[in-house]
Amino acid sequence: MITEKSLKEIFKINTYRWKTTITLIEKNHIRTRGYPLEELIGNISFSDIIFLLLMGELPPKDQSKMLDAILVSFCDHGLTPPSTQVARLTTSTGTPLNASIAAGLLAFGENHAGAIEKAMKLFQETINLCKSPEEIPILAEKLVEEHLKNGKKIPGYGHRYHHRDPRATRIIKVAEKLKCTGLHTQLAKEIEKTLHKTKKIHLNIDGANAAILSDLGFHWNTGTGIFMIGRLPGLIAHINEEKLEKPFRKTLKLEEIQYMENQKNRIKSS
Amino acid sequence: MITEKSLKEIFKINTYRWKTTITLIEKNHIRTRGYPLEELIGNISFSDIIFLLLMGELPPKDQSKMLDAILVSFCDHGLTPPSTQVARLTTSTGTPLNASIAAGLLAFGENHAGAIEKAMKLFQETINLCKSPEEIPILAEKLVEEHLKNGKKIPGYGHRYHHRDPRATRIIKVAEKLKCTGLHTQLAKEIEKTLHKTKKIHLNIDGANAAILSDLGFHWNTGTGIFMIGRLPGLIAHINEEKLEKPFRKTLKLEEIQYMENQKNRIKSS
Amino acid sequence: MITEKSLKEIFKINTYRWKTTITLIEKNHIRTRGYPLEELIGNISFSDIIFLLLMGELPPKDQSKMLDAILVSFCDHGLTPPSTQVARLTTSTGTPLNASIAAGLLAFGENHAGAIEKAMKLFQETINLCKSPEEIPILAEKLVEEHLKNGKKIPGYGHRYHHRDPRATRIIKVAEKLKCTGLHTQLAKEIEKTLHKTKKIHLNIDGANAAILSDLGFHWNTGTGIFMIGRLPGLIAHINEEKLEKPFRKTLKLEEIQYMENQKNRIKSS
Amino acid sequence: MITEKSLKEIFKINTYRWKTTITLIEKNHIRTRGYPLEELIGNISFSDIIFLLLMGELPPKDQSKMLDAILVSFCDHGLTPPSTQVARLTTSTGTPLNASIAAGLLAFGENHAGAIEKAMKLFQETINLCKSPEEIPILAEKLVEEHLKNGKKIPGYGHRYHHRDPRATRIIKVAEKLKCTGLHTQLAKEIEKTLHKTKKIHLNIDGANAAILSDLGFHWNTGTGIFMIGRLPGLIAHINEEKLEKPFRKTLKLEEIQYMENQKNRIKSS
Repeated sequence: MITEKSLKEIFKINTYRWKTTITLIEKNHIRTRGYPLEELIGNISFSDIIFLLLMGELPPKDQSKMLDAILVSFCDHGLTPPSTQVARLTTSTGTPLNASIAAGLLAFGENHAGAIEKAMKLFQETINLCKSPEEIPILAEKLVEEHLKNGKKIPGYGHRYHHRDPRATRIIKVAEKLKCTGLHTQLAKEIEKTLHKTKKIHLNIDGANAAILSDLGFHWNTGTGIFMIGRLPGLIAHINEEKLEKPFRKTLKLEEIQYMENQKNRIKSS
Repeated sequence: MITEKSLKEIFKINTYRWKTTITLIEKNHIRTRGYPLEELIGNISFSDIIFLLLMGELPPKDQSKMLDAILVSFCDHGLTPPSTQVARLTTSTGTPLNASIAAGLLAFGENHAGAIEKAMKLFQETINLCKSPEEIPILAEKLVEEHLKNGKKIPGYGHRYHHRDPRATRIIKVAEKLKCTGLHTQLAKEIEKTLHKTKKIHLNIDGANAAILSDLGFHWNTGTGIFMIGRLPGLIAHINEEKLEKPFRKTLKLEEIQYMENQKNRIKSS
Repeated sequence: MITEKSLKEIFKINTYRWKTTITLIEKNHIRTRGYPLEELIGNISFSDIIFLLLMGELPPKDQSKMLDAILVSFCDHGLTPPSTQVARLTTSTGTPLNASIAAGLLAFGENHAGAIEKAMKLFQETINLCKSPEEIPILAEKLVEEHLKNGKKIPGYGHRYHHRDPRATRIIKVAEKLKCTGLHTQLAKEIEKTLHKTKKIHLNIDGANAAILSDLGFHWNTGTGIFMIGRLPGLIAHINEEKLEKPFRKTLKLEEIQYMENQKNRIKSS
Repeated sequence: MITEKSLKEIFKINTYRWKTTITLIEKNHIRTRGYPLEELIGNISFSDIIFLLLMGELPPKDQSKMLDAILVSFCDHGLTPPSTQVARLTTSTGTPLNASIAAGLLAFGENHAGAIEKAMKLFQETINLCKSPEEIPILAEKLVEEHLKNGKKIPGYGHRYHHRDPRATRIIKVAEKLKCTGLHTQLAKEIEKTLHKTKKIHLNIDGANAAILSDLGFHWNTGTGIFMIGRLPGLIAHINEEKLEKPFRKTLKLEEIQYMENQKNRIKSS
């Protein structure tokens, strides 16, 4: 006999429209990455669940502490980043929190938050080709040479405001203490050595975190996500602070704007 | 017998998941608001279809020209608006066009682009209560009096940069020529008269357009949308222009930032 | 003599254009909320710095663990939330990570993520008026009565998918164990008792966290921010998962759309 | 003597912080691309000012009408595009208009709105290499051959829902009537001829508009912007329509989601 159940069976192909491996939702029951969520709440840290969500498994204790340190290192860089200025300017026009955050995150373009993934990719591709740890100094030298020859910057080195990024020095020490360093960090330090000789440039926080995250097993394409997770609380603090200011922040006075009449704005090929 | 058709009949309730009155899509056929789209293309102006989409019908010729004038009046206000600065800052970080536009639009908070809808609401609610045109001067006076008494600004009057907004004067003239004025515009002008006596403040472009749009029959809650349509081409021109600049615009130097150590950021109730 | 310094003195008023209490940036030195950032990295957890950024001070250990539990409880709710669907649909069109996240966050409108702040406000305003803990059951009853009389829902109670939200039960237990409950949690539980009698409705995770966050001292207007911080890693996991799917997710087939020809879309006053 | 003016002279280098060629703002005076804005209002159409803003000059009459037709052709494609669904889902959570629009625009990723710029680039690069119009059929054949050989789609041809896109046929006719076709349109039609023989695929609206816009002189990198300008009114109409629906649109039922427990979400290199 044709029952509702058998009909549903027939139409099953239409039933599963979306699939996920992240969280199962049933009535009165939530399971994330296989764990009942109520068993996770109160037993693991926020960094643990970030690791679980992005990597599919819970981290060993030292790796969890390492991720804590990395996220703390990304927390805020004052009023200098365009993303922070964009979030605050947007806030000053009277938008709700989520709109201000969204605007701030949109300003993480490749010139602003792009270095970490580029550095992770570079480190991971180089180490993938590396046959033994002894090779690393040679690979580092070759890599620097090629970049300099082609006038290209190595991502993760040098900083707009700092000569020596205090976060980078510190995070490497923490990683060593927590035994979270490996070939990628070794490579990052070798590159720094070579680069410092010729260009007086140091590893920055993006480069240091790129190396450590690679050693923790994170794929390069998760770098920007981790940076954004780390920066979000700072962005929110700035948005809250901006709300205490006078609305409609006037960033530019008329005399700070130069109008150039006779230039057309025909867009040149990029 | 159970056929595919009869089964579909049974499952029909699940079939219609979304409904729309805007555009019908069938294979090789598109109909917008009842019109085959290929009959509209080449026969109507962009302002006509904006009117059709937002109001459900094509406008008479003079109303279409009026909408053209309104959209032109909104086109750009140079580098002064936060939305434009946000769009350009975002662009300078290397984002794609749609992200820069989205960031810019997010900065149309109620302090920035909010006046037009507030003015439309005020005009429409006042006129809805008005029994005859003769009442308008009295209603205007009462309205100004109440606002001043409560220390509230009337939306659509006064401008951050202009004493007399050149766009407002002009758009009212255009509206009169095109016979697109009615009770709302009359009210807007009466308010200006009263307000100018006491506060030396004039009607601005938001107020003028709010009045004319109301006379064209637009509901007050379409005001911001029309403003955004008018402003989008200007935003895109700014984004294109920013792409010709050096990436990562540094808006603030370190010495332009004041760090105040001993103040906590506990958020006060708003 | 006029030196550069004296000139700068004169122009100082123009110099400090933005001010902040969050992070001091100097060359080679970063201080967040008064702490050198390098001293925080490796010594505090991610939840600690979230607390520091939003509250201005580091939390006691149990409060830090409590914030961990709250953030874990918000981590993901599978494919059911509009925000998650929006983030995945956006991803399927080929956008960069930050654009997909931004789109997802924009879908935290007041119908979706609004309950937590509304519940915090309600709890905090009620407790502010409360003269002694004995009053709480009476206040709870009055509050439920008023809401029911006016046909209004109490924010933080009931759930679209769960009869009894498993996260709520668990987080309250954790809060009790960590001694992080106080008058607000007491109120939340009294409301649940009364509401369950008449409507068979339970406290949900928004309500439970609203109460505990209030007892931790968070102002009601930080609720949505904390929710977003907690949810961001889950959103990113979904975006990563969507990238493994076929591009351009087709959510609707033509037969799932109903086109209604003769209805105009005139927007009614809301 | 040192006057304020002379001091300002000295500090001038800091004064011009931003520059623009788009709009001059002075007190009571606004000039866009050199024209006093009040002279443009009421005298030109919305398409005229779009042309002026993006190209730097006002268009001849037929080109203005052509741009009208192009913008009309982009106006809406019902509920089928991810961008429209994203805008409506976002709206259903209770967000303000600008947030819903921003979310919708963010879903114009390269798989969704990318074809027009890719087609413009392809057409413009091919025509730049073309020495005489006689070569066009040969260039078209070569181009199709190369794409097919490499298993690559030619952007601007074929459509998810239509076999023959009714807008494409129509817009080409309008362009011919308005004498707005040139080498790029010729090339687009030759490609269609060749492609139809082997693959039964036709020119779509993106391809047709890409060709005509190229003949009008638009640089390929303005294509997406023009598409977005054309689509914005449709997006707003959908947002307005969604506001009349029940809040919090439930797109998925629990039984439409398949949870796959044992699969890790490690992101593979893309």
